[in-house]
Formats: sequence, structure tokens, C-alpha cells
Amino acid sequence: MHNLKNKIDKLAGQHNGLFALDFLQTWDKTQSDLEYLLDLAQLLKDFRDNNMSTKTFDSGLAVSIFRDQSTRTRFSFASAANLLGLEVQDMDEAKSQIAHGETVRETANMISFLTDIIGIRDDMFLGEGHKYMKEVGEALDDGFKNGVLPQRPGIVNLQCDRDHPTQSMADLLHLKNHFGSLEKLKGKKIAMTWAYSPSYGKPLSVPQGIIALMTRFGMDVSLAYPAGYNLIPELEQQAASFAKQNNTKFEIVNSMEEAFADADIVYPKSWAPFSVMQQRTLLLQNKDTEGLKALEKSCLAQNANYTNWECDEAKMKLTKGGEALYMHCLPADISGVSCKQGEVSEGVFEKYRLATYIEAGYKPYIIAAMMMANRFDDPGEILRKLFKNGKNRVMV
Amino acid sequence: MHNLKNKIDKLAGQHNGLFALDFLQTWDKTQSDLEYLLDLAQLLKDFRDNNMSTKTFDSGLAVSIFRDQSTRTRFSFASAANLLGLEVQDMDEAKSQIAHGETVRETANMISFLTDIIGIRDDMFLGEGHKYMKEVGEALDDGFKNGVLPQRPGIVNLQCDRDHPTQSMADLLHLKNHFGSLEKLKGKKIAMTWAYSPSYGKPLSVPQGIIALMTRFGMDVSLAYPAGYNLIPELEQQAASFAKQNNTKFEIVNSMEEAFADADIVYPKSWAPFSVMQQRTLLLQNKDTEGLKALEKSCLAQNANYTNWECDEAKMKLTKGGEALYMHCLPADISGVSCKQGEVSEGVFEKYRLATYIEAGYKPYIIAAMMMANRFDDPGEILRKLFKNGKNRVMV
Amino acid sequence: MHNLKNKIDKLAGQHNGLFALDFLQTWDKTQSDLEYLLDLAQLLKDFRDNNMSTKTFDSGLAVSIFRDQSTRTRFSFASAANLLGLEVQDMDEAKSQIAHGETVRETANMISFLTDIIGIRDDMFLGEGHKYMKEVGEALDDGFKNGVLPQRPGIVNLQCDRDHPTQSMADLLHLKNHFGSLEKLKGKKIAMTWAYSPSYGKPLSVPQGIIALMTRFGMDVSLAYPAGYNLIPELEQQAASFAKQNNTKFEIVNSMEEAFADADIVYPKSWAPFSVMQQRTLLLQNKDTEGLKALEKSCLAQNANYTNWECDEAKMKLTKGGEALYMHCLPADISGVSCKQGEVSEGVFEKYRLATYIEAGYKPYIIAAMMMANRFDDPGEILRKLFKNGKNRVMV
Repeated sequence: MHNLKNKIDKLAGQHNGLFALDFLQTWDKTQSDLEYLLDLAQLLKDFRDNNMSTKTFDSGLAVSIFRDQSTRTRFSFASAANLLGLEVQDMDEAKSQIAHGETVRETANMISFLTDIIGIRDDMFLGEGHKYMKEVGEALDDGFKNGVLPQRPGIVNLQCDRDHPTQSMADLLHLKNHFGSLEKLKGKKIAMTWAYSPSYGKPLSVPQGIIALMTRFGMDVSLAYPAGYNLIPELEQQAASFAKQNNTKFEIVNSMEEAFADADIVYPKSWAPFSVMQQRTLLLQNKDTEGLKALEKSCLAQNANYTNWECDEAKMKLTKGGEALYMHCLPADISGVSCKQGEVSEGVFEKYRLATYIEAGYKPYIIAAMMMANRFDDPGEILRKLFKNGKNRVMV
Repeated sequence: MHNLKNKIDKLAGQHNGLFALDFLQTWDKTQSDLEYLLDLAQLLKDFRDNNMSTKTFDSGLAVSIFRDQSTRTRFSFASAANLLGLEVQDMDEAKSQIAHGETVRETANMISFLTDIIGIRDDMFLGEGHKYMKEVGEALDDGFKNGVLPQRPGIVNLQCDRDHPTQSMADLLHLKNHFGSLEKLKGKKIAMTWAYSPSYGKPLSVPQGIIALMTRFGMDVSLAYPAGYNLIPELEQQAASFAKQNNTKFEIVNSMEEAFADADIVYPKSWAPFSVMQQRTLLLQNKDTEGLKALEKSCLAQNANYTNWECDEAKMKLTKGGEALYMHCLPADISGVSCKQGEVSEGVFEKYRLATYIEAGYKPYIIAAMMMANRFDDPGEILRKLFKNGKNRVMV
Repeated sequence: MHNLKNKIDKLAGQHNGLFALDFLQTWDKTQSDLEYLLDLAQLLKDFRDNNMSTKTFDSGLAVSIFRDQSTRTRFSFASAANLLGLEVQDMDEAKSQIAHGETVRETANMISFLTDIIGIRDDMFLGEGHKYMKEVGEALDDGFKNGVLPQRPGIVNLQCDRDHPTQSMADLLHLKNHFGSLEKLKGKKIAMTWAYSPSYGKPLSVPQGIIALMTRFGMDVSLAYPAGYNLIPELEQQAASFAKQNNTKFEIVNSMEEAFADADIVYPKSWAPFSVMQQRTLLLQNKDTEGLKALEKSCLAQNANYTNWECDEAKMKLTKGGEALYMHCLPADISGVSCKQGEVSEGVFEKYRLATYIEAGYKPYIIAAMMMANRFDDPGEILRKLFKNGKNRVMV
């Protein structure tokens, strides 16, 4: 508890560059903003682990808009909101038909009269998810500025076509705790690699988020994929720039083995090639069912050339001491378990299974920290008051 | 804050004629009841605008039953419940199959053991929605009287086939604030007019609610629609009676221009003719899909004769100084925006867009006031205690 | 209130054998555990009836997983969670696809990072529901033991293929209050009988739960069904053993009249024969739609031989003084009301309708007691503190 008090004192009074701003992409934020967020998330976790209340809202809604299926992010968002005292209200589009344009402008205001946070997942269409979140944000700015809304709700990106910041930041907090400190991540090599999956059309936001973030936190990033399976070109270039600015390395290779060589961390995960996602977006927008079927068929056939892109025991032996940390955003396609042939062998996954669960466990706290940093100028000062109040989460 | 204290003192100790009674139709309530509700809603808004908690429930459910799609009313209800400390639990009929008769009697009790408020939207069938709410109310009376329920939950009508009181009361509060006081509404002319829409089957409850309420609050009401597009005849007659009793005017005309002439307020909105709604109800009850299609086709053809019933710049020029306040319950059918040809021109809507958002923003507070007036004998006294406690909504 | 204080003092300090253990089947618990649960449930009801807060959680989720439709259990669970301060988060399988195996292990952890209670209904497949709950429990044990979860959420069985403990315990509390005490239940005869229904495939868990529980609480149980309509054989044998151990009687007869003879309590309710449920489970697992249709047809034909298995006035005359207490878990198939010919005549049902509602009203408190007994070593001590705090549920 003494340690906790010290951590609070350290955070309180610090500049909070995240205050009153939406959290859409990690690369919109400074490194010190992101470090601040990690500290805040860890403190929220410490409070809860010590059975101390972090209820900062007496009422207020946290609206979630999921334009794609989700279990873990949905529960993480709900847990985060509840931890701070906000009540989740799902905006179910099947029930309420949001679209772009006028409707977004209006709906964004209609759901926000007593709302503090809006969490959005929109990762299906390339070029659309991020745009949609910006559009919602502008509508909220307009409503707040013109006296429609008594507050400007903050937006938390729960995954778009570009970034998945609640995932990548949870991953970073996991790495920080696993290796002991951010300092200790310096010079570590992380292999962010494509992996074979029997499904297709998986979003690009996780690998894009990882290469953008880890290059800024001292890690050397090796991005690996079969020729043609690239990410959004602009974001690959951005990772290269980040590496240059931060004296880290960023390389793109076409071999899983090469990426794994001497890696401290491996993150093997399937995604659809950028060009396929572009075609897919067009076909989806045109509701071209036949075209989509044809695309899926050709992609799966193409994927089938790369079934050897599996994270197995042999490839893990190539990593640093054969003991790299395996990461995944879950659920993984596990060979012989969740599919015949997938991203990872059963043995490797089982060895690191609990580690991936622990990794996932940081997400509720990262989201809660994003909410709190958005709403409070000085979250540390608020935590100081909560600490002083000493209310328990569960009665004792 | 001094001003707020004065308003609380003024409300406290007043007779609350809404206590322990369902809120189904504004015309079941006295004018002083309705004025009380406006004052209470405004106070709840003032509390929140001043970051003061209005949490009056430590636990308790607010059950919502939506028999029709809804976004803004759903969020308004959720916000209102949350503001007072109640938790929303949706009664999803797709999941639980309510019907009339025995099932209503039983289900009403089964969802109410720890429930304080039930909000119901049932506006699809003419002659059914209001009846259903009464039926639920009788089931709750029976359960409470016989010791099944420890409390008699209050019912809030979130739109039925007859009235839409949360809308019309929010509209009235908007008018009160826009013009400065209820006193200042005296002698104002409001044009409640039909408008063209490319859809059909829109409920009658909004225009019915408006003509019943505004005639009682000093306004002269001009109801306009193409010949044959009348509302429930009994409710048109009631509006005429209210006008007579309250020394206001009520007229029915068949010209949008005539209604707009010298109007202070215009409320152009589409609805289906009463006779069509009657036929539609029968066809829906008989699940006559072919009949429904035929009815829709003939109605849309009939509507097409009246595309000039659009609220455009030219018609707005006819209003008082060309500057009448435009109102709408949203979403509006905006020509060239949400449809090719609709209820309102893009220019007129855009000019008043923010005003319609502000109008909508009163709904959560009206609903919260209905909840509070139902549960507390003297809500003013409760607000006095909350004011004295001085708890913040968001920690500072 | 003095009486309430005495009851709290009596409970506090007692051994709570339910602490930190899942509540899956009443027969996994000792009689003293079950009596403890009844006392705790009654106290929670007393607190609420006296407008006293029982909020023991400042934050935390209560996750519900419904693999079958439900209204009353869904609302009971939501009410119970809300009463204690937990927020319900539904795990909608349509949205998130749980299955067995690896997925269960992972999903159980993913939804549990900040979760205190998981309520599960899974009663569709014979041999599956209970197994699934055990599987979830093992996954949670694993996650908690290995530092994935900061707490081990407790599981509450909201109905499986074997038991329906929230129902049977609510029924027992109803009987205790109806007859005055557990002591007074000694020697009472309860007729748990099959009844005709025009539907098929109703679960076996209610009759199984009743015969297992009532034989342990002093009652003589007469289980009646047409030849071939038996329950899971192992559970019928268990009831016989319980009767022997507790000096009560357990008989199986093939006549509703015989069971009703001189009964103090009757519980007439339809179910599908064990053998049919076995076939049905296989067909469902094989997605054999044709086979399912054929099975339904043959079963309904078989059922039709037993339409005289209706609880009517004539049969009620056979019971103790013609005034046995009628029980049902609701909704009942009422002849001439909810179906042409059903489980109970309209007259009998109407006479006992309110009694069945009161019976149902205990369920939220039983569930809340299960939650509290799972989370707190000494719930009585917690109630003592709540009593001392004296916070109202609704402001006064």
C-alpha cells in the first residue's frame, strides 16, 4: 500500500496530454502520453487488486457501438465502464440503423445527452472505420460547441481498419510487466508475422498497431509475411520512420524463420493482404455477393500456399534461447484444436496459453485508463482522493 | 446555485398529483401536474449541469419494453434511469414472447419483483398500444394489492397509438425555454401539419399529443393535412374542447400554407391517415402480407399527390416574420439528404438542425421527472436533500 | 426491525459451507448449507421490504449465459445482481459463439477478468448442461490458480439438464413461509406429477430438482407419470436414497390420482420422457432436422394418450381436505387459456394463480443469496454492517 501511495504521488500533477481528446490511434499521441496511460492503467489494476474502489462517476453512460462481433473487447469495455461507475448502453445498429452522413451527425448527438464515453469498433471496411470515428467526433464537437450536449463525450477506438490501440497498449503493458520495465524492452526483437489461417478477411489493425507502437518503445520490429500480404503501405512506412526516430530497427521480410531468428517476442497472426481488403471493401459496399464468394475462394487458395507459416516448435527453436515470448490477441487458430491447420501448433499455444490470457487481462484496465484520462485533467489527483476515501470495492 | 436553491424551495411541498400514477396520456393529467413535471425536469437538468448527483435509488430496475424500433427514446430512457440510480433491463419480446391476456398478467408480475419503473413503447397497432399499457397496469395493481409485488412499479408511456407524452412534454419544455416562460406561449400560433414522406405507416401519436397539449398551454393550434389524412376523430374533438376550455384556438385546415400563415412555431411531420392505420392494424393482426403490400402501394400512390407538402423556404416565409421556430421529433425526412423528396427542405432543416437537437435533449429529463414524480410523494424535498448532500456526479 | 436484528445476529458467525463454491446441484450441498441459504435469502428480502440497502459491491460484473430462452430467470438474475451492486452483462452466444473444449476454457477466462458471478442456463441437451458448467468452473479454477484472474467468479446454475436449484430452492422457501417453518413441512405429502401438454421436449430438471430436495426436507414425495415417462434413472434412485436417509417416503406411481390422494402439495408439470430426451439430444447434435420432426410427431401422438393427466377440480378434491397447495414454475399450460388442453384447468390455476406468483417472487432473493454466500465467508457479518450503516434503498 505504501508502494501504491508512491505511485499515485508520482502520477498526480503530471501533464495529461490525453485529456479531452479522443483515443483513435497510438501514433496521434506522444510517447509520454502513452507512458502516462500505462501508469494509469497499472494503478487502476493495483486499486482493484487491493479491493479499493475506483468509482469516479455517480451516473453517466458509456455507449458501445460494435459494427463487428466481439466477445473480449465487449467485456473489457463493459468491465472498464463499470469499474469507474459508468453504465454501458449498447447501440445496436441492427436495431437502430446508423449510416454515414446526416444520420451519423444526428445519431451521435441523440445518444450523447448524458454520455461520457463512446467506444466504437468498426474494422470491416478498409478506409471506413477510422473515417467513421472521426465523423462521430466532429458531430460531437458540433453538438457540444452549440449547446446541444452538456459535455463532449470521449471516443475510444475499440478497433478500426487502421489501429487497435486498446489491444496494442494492453500488449505493451504486458511486455512491460513481463520484462520488468519499459527500459528493459530496449533492444528486444519482436517478430510480428503473418500466419496461416483457414479463414480469410481478418483485419490488418493488430499488426499495424504493433509495428507502429513497438518501434517507438525501444524494440526492433521484424515484420514478416508472404510476398503480397502487405499492410497499408502508408502505415508500413510510418513504422520505418518511427524506427529511425527512435533508434530502433524495422524490417520487412518474407520468411517467418528469418523474423523468428533470435527474436525475444513473436506475434504470429493471420491477416488478409491489403489488396484483398481493398477489393473486399468495394465488393461489400456494392453488396456483390458473387464477387465476395469468388474473392474468398481465390484468397483461400492463395493462403493454402502458405500453410507452413505456422508457429511451431521448430520455428520457436530459432528464437532467443528457443524461449521467445509468444503473443496473440486471441482467439488463435490452433492446429488440431480450433482448426485442422492454423496459426500455431497445439504444443506452442499450450505452453504460452496462460501468458496470452494474462496479456488479454490488461485490456479492461487500458480501456478504463483511456476513459479516465479523457475525462479528468489530473487522474492522479482523483486517485489520490479515492485512496484517501479508502472505500472497498467489495465489502469486508 | 442560489437560483437553484430557490427553485428547489419553490417545488418542495407542492402537491404532486403524479405520485403513484402511471403516465400514459397528458390529457389524464391536470395542467398544474404538467407544469409541476416541467419544473421537476428542469431542476434535474440543472442538477446535472451543475455536476450534482441526483441518485435517489441505491438499487432497482427500470424495465423497458420496446415493441417497435427506437434509438433516441431508448437512450433517453436509459439515461433517465441511470441518472436516478436505476438499472435498465430490456424486456426483449423476441426472446420472451409477451402477448395479451393471461400472459400479460403473468409476465407483468414476473418482471416486476424488484422493479420501480416500466417504460413501454407500443405504437404499431391502432387501438392496441394504450390498451396494452392499461392491461399491464391492471396486472401490476393486482399483483401489488395481493402481496405479490413489494411495490407497484410505475408505467411511463414511451409512445403508444394515442399519445407520445415524453415527446410532447419535451417539446413543451423546449418551447418554454425558447420563448422564456409558459406565460409567453400565450397567443402563440403553432402549425401542426402533415408533411410528405416517401415512407408510410408513421404513427399518429406525435400530432395527437401536440394538439392535445399545446391547446392547453395558451397556444393557438392549426392542424393541417390533405383531405382524408385525419387523426383519431375523438382526439381531434378533444383538442377542440381543450381549446374552448382554455380560450385558445383550434382549427383544422387542408393547406400547409394556411397553417403556416403567421405561425410562431411549425411542426411539419408525416403520418398515415387514420383510416389507413385502421386497415393496416387489421391486416397486421391477420398477418395478411399480400394485403399489407397492396395497402402500402396504394398509400404511397396517394401520398405522391402531396409531395408539395414540404416545409421549404417559401412556406417558411409565410410564418411570423418568416422566422417561426421549426420543430421535429426526429429523424426527419430531409429532401435531398435522407430521401429524394421529404418533409422538409435541406435549407430549412439545416437552419433549425441544432434547435431540433436541443429539443430532443429535454427528453431524458422529462422521463427522469416522470419516474421521480411517480416514485416520490414530494420530489422537491428529495432534491433538497440531494442539494444538501452536495455529492458530485463526476468526481472533482 | 428488532426481529430483523435478531435474525442477523443468528446468521452471523454461522459456518457458511457455500463460500467460494459453485452452486450447481442442491444434492452437492448439505442440508445445513441449504437451510443457511434459505435464511440468507429471507434476510435479503427483509432488508428490501424494509427499504434497506444490501449493496455489497461497489463495482463488478455478473455475467449471464443463457443457452435457452428465459424471461423470469433472466429478470431474477438481473434483479439479484442489481440488489447487491453487480452489473449484469449478457454473454450472447449468437454474438460470440461459445462451444465446448478449448473455446470454453478461453472464453470463460476472457469474460471473467472483473467478474464476480457467472449465471448459466443450459438445459437443452441431456448430459450436456451440467457438463458445460463443470467445464466453465474448471477453466476458472485454472485461470485463478495461474494468476490470470484476480478472483475466481462463482457459478450459479440457472437450470441445467439435471437440476434447477434456483427454482427448487425458491419453491422450498415458498413452502417454508406458506406452512410456517421447515419443521412444519415434516410429514407433508407432495405430489410431483407429470401433466399433459401440447408441446414436447420440456426439460426434466424441475421434477428432478423437486424430488431430490423435498425428500431431504421432511416431505413424502410421490412422483407420478405415465409408464415410460421416467426421469434420469440415477436421479430417481438418488431421491429414493434421500428418502431412506431422511426418514421420508419416496414412491413412483403411474397415476396422477394416486399421487394426489391426500397430498398437501401438488406440482403437476409436463416433461419429456428421459428416453425421448436422449434421442432428441442425439438428433440435435447431429442437426438431424427430419429426425427431430419425426420424433416430435411421435411424441406428441404418445402424449395425446394422456390428456387426462390434467390437474382439474376433480383431482384436487382427492388431496388433503381438497385444499392442497398447487405449485408451478410457470408458465403453466392452462386448458382453455394458453392452450386448448393443458397441464391444469382454468379454475384450479386461477384459484392458485397468485400463490404461484408469490412462489416465483422468491427466486431473485434465492439467487442473490447464492451470490452472496459464494462471495462472502460470513454474509451475516456483512448484513450486520449494512444494518448498522442503515442506508435506504430508495431515498426518503
